[in-house]
Amino acid sequence: MPESGLTLILGGARSGKSRHAEALVSQLPAPWHYIATAQAYDDEMRERIDEHRARRDDRWITFDAPLALSDALSSMPVGATVLVDCLTLWLSNQMLAEQDVEAETKSLLEVLNNRRSQCFVVSNEVGLGIVPDNALARRFRDAQGRLNQRVAAIADSVIFMVAGLPMKVK
Amino acid sequence: MPESGLTLILGGARSGKSRHAEALVSQLPAPWHYIATAQAYDDEMRERIDEHRARRDDRWITFDAPLALSDALSSMPVGATVLVDCLTLWLSNQMLAEQDVEAETKSLLEVLNNRRSQCFVVSNEVGLGIVPDNALARRFRDAQGRLNQRVAAIADSVIFMVAGLPMKVK
Amino acid sequence: MPESGLTLILGGARSGKSRHAEALVSQLPAPWHYIATAQAYDDEMRERIDEHRARRDDRWITFDAPLALSDALSSMPVGATVLVDCLTLWLSNQMLAEQDVEAETKSLLEVLNNRRSQCFVVSNEVGLGIVPDNALARRFRDAQGRLNQRVAAIADSVIFMVAGLPMKVK
Repeated sequence: MPESGLTLILGGARSGKSRHAEALVSQLPAPWHYIATAQAYDDEMRERIDEHRARRDDRWITFDAPLALSDALSSMPVGATVLVDCLTLWLSNQMLAEQDVEAETKSLLEVLNNRRSQCFVVSNEVGLGIVPDNALARRFRDAQGRLNQRVAAIADSVIFMVAGLPMKVK
Repeated sequence: MPESGLTLILGGARSGKSRHAEALVSQLPAPWHYIATAQAYDDEMRERIDEHRARRDDRWITFDAPLALSDALSSMPVGATVLVDCLTLWLSNQMLAEQDVEAETKSLLEVLNNRRSQCFVVSNEVGLGIVPDNALARRFRDAQGRLNQRVAAIADSVIFMVAGLPMKVK
Repeated sequence: MPESGLTLILGGARSGKSRHAEALVSQLPAPWHYIATAQAYDDEMRERIDEHRARRDDRWITFDAPLALSDALSSMPVGATVLVDCLTLWLSNQMLAEQDVEAETKSLLEVLNNRRSQCFVVSNEVGLGIVPDNALARRFRDAQGRLNQRVAAIADSVIFMVAGLPMKVK
């Protein structure tokens, strides 16, 4: 593996994205920096967060960045191996908080592009079902699709997860 | 093709999963054992079952196992070529009948793991759309994703269907 | 690239299907014939149409064929490079107008099969989410899946788009 690079791990719900990302990271020297974008706003989400957290031992350092992801990435030590989990919750948080998504995305892409270390980013593919009934869901779906394309375009490696198995896309 | 092995055929609705699975099976010596998990609880489903059944000639022996899939698999003759169509309806039946899905899944995985013949299993990928509004749909989506991962993990071969065409994942 | 051939570009919403199709077309000698199936029945759709149109310069000749796609294809000059964008809106228009979808599809497949030039067709994969609640959405999903299979079967090349990146399926 080269010394720096951006890997995007895409997939559906429960496709094993996080697990695969963690497996890739754990082949690199510890410590590993985990940037979590999840917010425990209900029990379902709290459970999911706890489940993910339980998988990570003390070689992981966890940072919470539900909104300020670019800042969190910028503040990582030089050369630090970083896992961002995930862009979908970050985007959802941005939209719920009525942030300027385009400005936030540009700033995120710039930071990702300039990082000099191994960076792994998890994101959901959400556009392969029927068109959602409600307009907000359609807006989110479009925004997520566009964001994935833009991150994929600057990524060195893109992986599409199917049933826990990686397919190399780039 | 080796003498025994587990093949998982994944895909979306109307992606040609069943047809491809049947094509793979029919390259092996007949008879072929078809374990159907569908239940004809409404006209739409009855039509779908009839359509699938019409494709299969008398070299196929059909068994119905909407819930007792592990038992059906265990009772197959040694060396029998088996097609299970599909895990998605089986899982849905389990959840509707309020069975212990984890216990049923463990028992299924054990039987699949111990079979000494060619076994083909069809399942749906359902996690690539927007998050469903209702909690039951989310639970199902999560359960299906986890089940697919676990079967894929023990499968010798995993195929992802796109528009009737197979993509080899494993 | 051979002198004639049918390429199907499949993918989810905002997966970069149109953009990739346009990139493939623009490697061939201009002019390029663009058959649009979209209808600007609301602001959201008008915006989307305008966005696509803004990407195409005057080497593109645009034809509108929300329903009469077979006729539009038949009327293209011999040897003309054609991009159809997209089958999903065409199918949706057919269903909303209560046309005989099977007859229209047969006629479309025949025209596609007999074309003697480079033809690129964009379509959505919509079957990888949870089963939709409403019956019309389920009917559409099934019809789209079947249509994609039939076009893929006669296509020389099938591409599945993930986050703007092409995966070769056929």
